[in-house]
Amino acid sequence: MTQPVSHDALRQFTSACYQAMGVKTRSADILADSLVQADLWGHQSHGVMRLFWYAARLKTGAMDGNAEPQMDGGFGAIATMDGCGGLGQVVAHAAMTQAIALSKTHGLGAVAVRNSGHFGTAMYFTKMAAQAGCVGFVSTNASPAMAPWGGMEKRVGNNPWSWAAPAGRYAPMILDIANTAVARGKLYLAKQKNEAIPETWAIDAQGRATVDPAAGIAGTILPMAGHKGYAISTIMDMLSGVLTGSHFGSSVVGPYVPDGVSGVGHFVLAIDIKACRPLDDFHADMERLIDGLKATPRQPGVDEIYYPGEMEAVSDAKLRKTGIFLPKDTADELRSKAKELDIIVPF
Amino acid sequence: MTQPVSHDALRQFTSACYQAMGVKTRSADILADSLVQADLWGHQSHGVMRLFWYAARLKTGAMDGNAEPQMDGGFGAIATMDGCGGLGQVVAHAAMTQAIALSKTHGLGAVAVRNSGHFGTAMYFTKMAAQAGCVGFVSTNASPAMAPWGGMEKRVGNNPWSWAAPAGRYAPMILDIANTAVARGKLYLAKQKNEAIPETWAIDAQGRATVDPAAGIAGTILPMAGHKGYAISTIMDMLSGVLTGSHFGSSVVGPYVPDGVSGVGHFVLAIDIKACRPLDDFHADMERLIDGLKATPRQPGVDEIYYPGEMEAVSDAKLRKTGIFLPKDTADELRSKAKELDIIVPF
Repeated sequence: MTQPVSHDALRQFTSACYQAMGVKTRSADILADSLVQADLWGHQSHGVMRLFWYAARLKTGAMDGNAEPQMDGGFGAIATMDGCGGLGQVVAHAAMTQAIALSKTHGLGAVAVRNSGHFGTAMYFTKMAAQAGCVGFVSTNASPAMAPWGGMEKRVGNNPWSWAAPAGRYAPMILDIANTAVARGKLYLAKQKNEAIPETWAIDAQGRATVDPAAGIAGTILPMAGHKGYAISTIMDMLSGVLTGSHFGSSVVGPYVPDGVSGVGHFVLAIDIKACRPLDDFHADMERLIDGLKATPRQPGVDEIYYPGEMEAVSDAKLRKTGIFLPKDTADELRSKAKELDIIVPF
Repeated sequence: MTQPVSHDALRQFTSACYQAMGVKTRSADILADSLVQADLWGHQSHGVMRLFWYAARLKTGAMDGNAEPQMDGGFGAIATMDGCGGLGQVVAHAAMTQAIALSKTHGLGAVAVRNSGHFGTAMYFTKMAAQAGCVGFVSTNASPAMAPWGGMEKRVGNNPWSWAAPAGRYAPMILDIANTAVARGKLYLAKQKNEAIPETWAIDAQGRATVDPAAGIAGTILPMAGHKGYAISTIMDMLSGVLTGSHFGSSVVGPYVPDGVSGVGHFVLAIDIKACRPLDDFHADMERLIDGLKATPRQPGVDEIYYPGEMEAVSDAKLRKTGIFLPKDTADELRSKAKELDIIVPF
């Protein structure tokens, strides 16, 4: 850990880095805000640690940092959007902005997005809907991460999806799910600690169940909840890839390779709550729902029941005051890369 | 097992039983078709085994077998519907019919349903959308079935949800998920068949692991995928209960108790595929997606990779030819109850 850095300073630093890489100010600001927000939510794996992961793809031109997403079709309350191979965060931000606008005219609105890129944290976009008095939904597809159920070759992405809704005096209720049983990093951690892994995490290279983290790393991560996670992830590919006319299945290219068109697609939906019932009534009932969850008798050793999205809101409120603590490796890497770009480092 | 009974005969028998209980023909037919369809899909836990489970609630008037769902508000592409305490299957059928109609006018359409009842099998309704050239989504809430994560009292339903889409030469791709580790009906089926259940399905009333289905029924079902299943189920309650202005959380009454207003709500969505892209292109890409999944190298001992909804389609095609094989206990119970109603039994 290093000294904490304020979220504002970290955001300005992140945006400056992208601008130095040739991304225009508005896009760099959206990208910076989404990364720093992930750190504020306590999701460091999706935070500024990823700042330079997109650099190689910007450099090769596989991703166009200045592409402007284009609305080019649709019907009624649905718009179609060509992400033009741009930054996923910028594209998804534009899509959710449009979905919210459509919902105010039609009660609900959707944008089917093709030819976008890795957009980072799904809940960044659904929270926009919650803040606009809507229920929001976002799905995306992603490069292959798991085998179909019964298979032994990665052909299905972890295809994250998110729902969010405002919740009265509480912070928004937000779900943000990836459909793999576990992040790959947890297998590396278990290997380092010489610990066995649960049989539900991964299969080995021969497709057999394993408790050996090394064998799991050489094999394939399993879906969450067994066949259910495989089915959910496949449906999210149908929505994000097939319905939008984007890439799908094995043809989606991830953010960790320097070249190749991403082809990631998103499906973005906003439902205007007041089309269903008065917004105040919705807020009041959300408070009652959450009150009921939080008042549940707890298992021994459990201090508090959290509703979906609450842990992130608690972390956000705390880190906005204390500043963000970056792991030393992340801070060192950012300092080194920023120096090459001649950017002043605030930590 | 008894001699097989044809799906047509079983459907007529089921409808006749409901009509003898005072349900009008059209509603009895929808209810009968949805139960027999669950049997055809191989989901016997949601099939005619449940025929008389609704009887007590019809008798007490807790559920009104002849209520007609009323559309009573909304805006643009969203309608609100009062289920008027009627049969969940009849209400959900009306809601999806309306959502599909709205999608043909607006590109997508939704119906927020309150004051409905237990609707059986979610995919029965999303499949209607797939057959109409739409992507369909349905969520429902349900009586408390699991504890919030870290809690030890049931306050969250299993809150099923389903997505479906047509798939070219393949049967529709359909996801149908309950967020518990297992559908509650499977515990009843195991109990009826006198079979042990896996330890991962439920804990008993004292919070201990159990393999006894009766102890699991008296205790608490576990969520699928740990905290993720809890979060998903809570979001489905937000959509089905809070957004619709229906009951939510602990106030939802299930189909297994004879009285009390159900208060179940549903959120029903249809997206007209041709508003996003030409329907033929969608079908062709769905075939490619499924071809890719099915061609994946298989784990040892696995004969075939299935896409979501395929196993149900295979079962349906088979049982339409062979007839449906009812477990002896189910057949005996149906015979006995039908005799009381003076209905001729076709098995």
